[in-house]
Amino acid sequence: MPEDTLFSKIARGEIPSTEVYSDENFYAFRDINPGAPTHVLVVPRRPIPMITDATEADALLLGRLLLVANKIAEKEGLTKDGFRYVINCGAWGGQTVFHLHVHILGGRPMAWPPG
Amino acid sequence: MPEDTLFSKIARGEIPSTEVYSDENFYAFRDINPGAPTHVLVVPRRPIPMITDATEADALLLGRLLLVANKIAEKEGLTKDGFRYVINCGAWGGQTVFHLHVHILGGRPMAWPPG
Repeated sequence: MPEDTLFSKIARGEIPSTEVYSDENFYAFRDINPGAPTHVLVVPRRPIPMITDATEADALLLGRLLLVANKIAEKEGLTKDGFRYVINCGAWGGQTVFHLHVHILGGRPMAWPPG
Repeated sequence: MPEDTLFSKIARGEIPSTEVYSDENFYAFRDINPGAPTHVLVVPRRPIPMITDATEADALLLGRLLLVANKIAEKEGLTKDGFRYVINCGAWGGQTVFHLHVHILGGRPMAWPPG
């Protein structure tokens, strides 16, 4: 497991970010190049490079990643109108940082298809 | 919990669909209005209306939903080039069926922002 991804450094506070949520296992911050009025990234502190690298042993972590995203959506006031979660995997998915993360996008109606 | 969503009927085979994956807890089928060359929907058989309705008791189910999506991405040949997972919540998210589902989109480079 690579321990020193860009997002590990951000989660440890070694690279500055605008914190939205933090606990023992997860960290969330604003995307520096937002794709919507609200655009937050949620990362597990333990880096999993791609969603396809997750195993059955990670099931609870993956579930909690989504539950933490729910807390953030609520905190950001997105739940009334709605929002979108996106996980990119690999080149065609548009994944640019190889540390699993969920994008939370809201604050405007999201179009279809999703990219 | 509403037991009779469109997707519950599809998962039970009461409404026809093109099955991609099926097990005790999950069912996956092709989107009838695909947004990419490969576009599959994965649903838990137990209906949760919106992702925000999931609780800590659902953490393992949510994690396994993503792990099942991984199996399908592999089976559909999407893992080499990459793909995108999307969960819509509410009106601005673009959610149209109130039975939690993950969209798997691949077979072409996905654009950004995601809708």
